[in-house]
Amino acid sequence: MARPRWKDFPVERVRRFLEPGPVVLLSTGWRGERGIMTLGWHMMLGEDLVGTYLWQSNRSHALARRSRQCVINLPTADLLDTVVRIGNCSGTEGDKFDRFGLTALPARDVDAPMIGECHAAFECRLHETRITADYPLFVWRVVRAHAAASPKYPATVHYRGEGRFMVSGREVSRRRLFRPDMLEM
Amino acid sequence: MARPRWKDFPVERVRRFLEPGPVVLLSTGWRGERGIMTLGWHMMLGEDLVGTYLWQSNRSHALARRSRQCVINLPTADLLDTVVRIGNCSGTEGDKFDRFGLTALPARDVDAPMIGECHAAFECRLHETRITADYPLFVWRVVRAHAAASPKYPATVHYRGEGRFMVSGREVSRRRLFRPDMLEM
Repeated sequence: MARPRWKDFPVERVRRFLEPGPVVLLSTGWRGERGIMTLGWHMMLGEDLVGTYLWQSNRSHALARRSRQCVINLPTADLLDTVVRIGNCSGTEGDKFDRFGLTALPARDVDAPMIGECHAAFECRLHETRITADYPLFVWRVVRAHAAASPKYPATVHYRGEGRFMVSGREVSRRRLFRPDMLEM
Repeated sequence: MARPRWKDFPVERVRRFLEPGPVVLLSTGWRGERGIMTLGWHMMLGEDLVGTYLWQSNRSHALARRSRQCVINLPTADLLDTVVRIGNCSGTEGDKFDRFGLTALPARDVDAPMIGECHAAFECRLHETRITADYPLFVWRVVRAHAAASPKYPATVHYRGEGRFMVSGREVSRRRLFRPDMLEM
């Protein structure tokens, strides 16, 4: 699989990739164990804050909770089959990087590995612990971001349930209809 | 504006519309006041549970908090200009249904109005109050859903920030790669 060339990307602009709602791959690492999960349940919660719902039964839940770190990786449509396969097996069946031929790159600010084949990778630290204490919702702060310089808007996949996906389509601007202060929000 | 013909839609399938991450219009009503806000910050939190982030400074925050009800309406790409205009003005400037020529339809199970011009409308009741007590995140249970029978997958709009939107693209299935039990999740 091809590996995009990443550059540093401003953390305050990660919503460009995440707010449209793509499926992401969340990678974790803790004491020599590492995991990847496919995830469609996430949302922006601030300029550099992202919420993710991690099922308690999922091994990634434990790794994320213990390490308080993760990487949110953005796969593109050409990785769809791998994305689906990752979501349909458990980490207990073997290391998913090895199994799916993915490149684990060391992150800069967290110990979780980044997935080299993805378009972008966002290094995250747990920001909010009160919610996670009794709800499987993790609020992450993106502390460092990497993204391929092109394409600016890659084809992403968006899950509908029941094995169906929407692939991102055309881009439109409505900047002219925005109040200047609303463009900053 | 055209008004789609709605049918009852199974609440346990609303993820088909919401999980791909479209911009939605959240409508509220409380003691004779009503509001609409444009919202991109939402996520699935269960089969019929949806989380939404509502800025505290927003009038809809107060209406949602007091009434503990809302309707999540799904606009299509032909409504984009209206969606943007709704997001760029305040309810204090006047009733948004009147201002934008939208039809307020009475919901069946909640007091918040539904927006007749949208492709679908999901009647919601506040499900989780502990989180909302100290974080502007509302966890809603969809108690009734309405949707146009066709198109099955309408063109939705997905916000990127900075005045830019992605319009939903082609549909693909990967059912064959799913474990049967994962198709139910």
